[in-house]
Amino acid sequence: MIAIGVDIGGTSIKGAFINEQGTILNRFSMKVDKDAAPEGEVAKLCDLIVHDRDELKTNEEIKGIGIGIPGILDMDEGIIVSSPNLPTWDGFNIKAFMEKKLKYKVLINNDANVAALGEAKFGSGKNYKDLIMITLGTGVGGGVIINGKLFDGNKHQGAELGHMVIRMDGKPCGCGRRGCFEAYASASALIRDTKAMMKKHPISMLTEIEKELVGIDGRNAFLAAKRGDKYGQKLVDNYVKYLSEGLINYCNIFRPEAIILSGGIANEKEYLIDKVVEYLEKHTYGMKGSPKVKILNGQLGYDSGKIGAASLVLFE
Amino acid sequence: MIAIGVDIGGTSIKGAFINEQGTILNRFSMKVDKDAAPEGEVAKLCDLIVHDRDELKTNEEIKGIGIGIPGILDMDEGIIVSSPNLPTWDGFNIKAFMEKKLKYKVLINNDANVAALGEAKFGSGKNYKDLIMITLGTGVGGGVIINGKLFDGNKHQGAELGHMVIRMDGKPCGCGRRGCFEAYASASALIRDTKAMMKKHPISMLTEIEKELVGIDGRNAFLAAKRGDKYGQKLVDNYVKYLSEGLINYCNIFRPEAIILSGGIANEKEYLIDKVVEYLEKHTYGMKGSPKVKILNGQLGYDSGKIGAASLVLFE
Repeated sequence: MIAIGVDIGGTSIKGAFINEQGTILNRFSMKVDKDAAPEGEVAKLCDLIVHDRDELKTNEEIKGIGIGIPGILDMDEGIIVSSPNLPTWDGFNIKAFMEKKLKYKVLINNDANVAALGEAKFGSGKNYKDLIMITLGTGVGGGVIINGKLFDGNKHQGAELGHMVIRMDGKPCGCGRRGCFEAYASASALIRDTKAMMKKHPISMLTEIEKELVGIDGRNAFLAAKRGDKYGQKLVDNYVKYLSEGLINYCNIFRPEAIILSGGIANEKEYLIDKVVEYLEKHTYGMKGSPKVKILNGQLGYDSGKIGAASLVLFE
Repeated sequence: MIAIGVDIGGTSIKGAFINEQGTILNRFSMKVDKDAAPEGEVAKLCDLIVHDRDELKTNEEIKGIGIGIPGILDMDEGIIVSSPNLPTWDGFNIKAFMEKKLKYKVLINNDANVAALGEAKFGSGKNYKDLIMITLGTGVGGGVIINGKLFDGNKHQGAELGHMVIRMDGKPCGCGRRGCFEAYASASALIRDTKAMMKKHPISMLTEIEKELVGIDGRNAFLAAKRGDKYGQKLVDNYVKYLSEGLINYCNIFRPEAIILSGGIANEKEYLIDKVVEYLEKHTYGMKGSPKVKILNGQLGYDSGKIGAASLVLFE
């Protein structure tokens, strides 16, 4: 059996034919014109899928198409309610459109959920049944797997793990509240804090590193800390605390076997993951001898979206 | 079919024979000597159960015994790992002891989980499949029902809904962290804040109400607010905010159909529940037209523990 996994982004659509072992058999990708009507773009996607299917020359049954989409979705109906990166797509029923055109079953889900499912089934979570994936990027995305299945709440509107307030009245969040986990633990939050630190201490190693990296992203603070800069270290210490406090909340709420962290920042092993593990051992609530939560790195990288989208179909 | 539901507290054990409709057929209760060895006390409980069973004269099958216990449990093994109110019971295998003595299957679970299950199956949650129950008492207890089933995490160590930090570096919590939901939204937290307010403003309506109620509990602040006292109103406003912020987090995480609030404070309709509903409508994240979360009062009161404990067996 084969499923097609599609990962829709703001500038391109990537996809793959994936078998039951999670192996990618064939990849495809296309650019998206974000100002064009969705019908035209998705028609191109359908043509690409047909072309690649014919090229693949497989006798195995193709069970359907899974799609990961950022934004607010009506998953049951298959409608993109609102996607900030593809504003012309708002209200588009991608499921109905593709099912009519291709005669394959189409399932859609949130990009963060889909990535979590991919890691759970074929990535670093494959030995666990209860896990959480947290993606540290522009925002903080979350996916929850309970007993091997994606959990996303009533009408698929839950698992918004970035929008848990950890500091009431704290930093403003894009969702309208103040003090969300996302406002502290996203890469954007770290960049905001790095800029604030540089403004406060204009002549520092952080300024040199900015020139070196030609800009500021999630790496600057870590690089400065590694070179012994006290301001860089302070930024990293704070970030470890913010991230850990949110993760401990999720340990107490879900008590998962493992938490998978993904996004560029999650690659900082000694300066982040090891420190988070240390923090969690000190502060997690629970029974004496309570199961420890494994903190893992995502294994699939950018393929988690495609493999996870296919998993929607493979493990339906 | 009948199940026996047992609710173990620090001063007494209460129980009932309950049928599949959730009807209480027969109640029993006994005092507990909290300094005595558990074997003697639980032997008395077993005698009481046998006595009441014989008195009940039913032909229906008794499927087993469910027990709700406060504290840290090893639910699979049936062991009370640590129960603050019954310190001599630590390490006692209540399941093995009772199964041997009575030849009925015994299931144990956390008191907050059990109460949630009771309300979900036979109380105000009976029309919902996805819900959360939050008990506002000395602490903040939580129970999560997903698709009609109790969710309690890996090795039953999750759903510790009181131990989610909502204000990093905030008020100290009994769990060792700072700023937990419990440290703001429990009745104890409201009492702490009431006392602090009275210390700051020694001559106020709060002082009069203390005399009237002969003490301070969760009611003082609400009573003062109802009588137009500005300090009482301030306490209530803060409490509404603390409680709502935590509930919104749980809406975003679980997106339940309903949240059931229980405990004495939850009876404050206009001054609490209605205000919480208002706050949630303004701040809950989610899709436009996202399902609204119903805020309900527990219906079963003190019986939720017994009925929920029996439900462990009835819905196993």
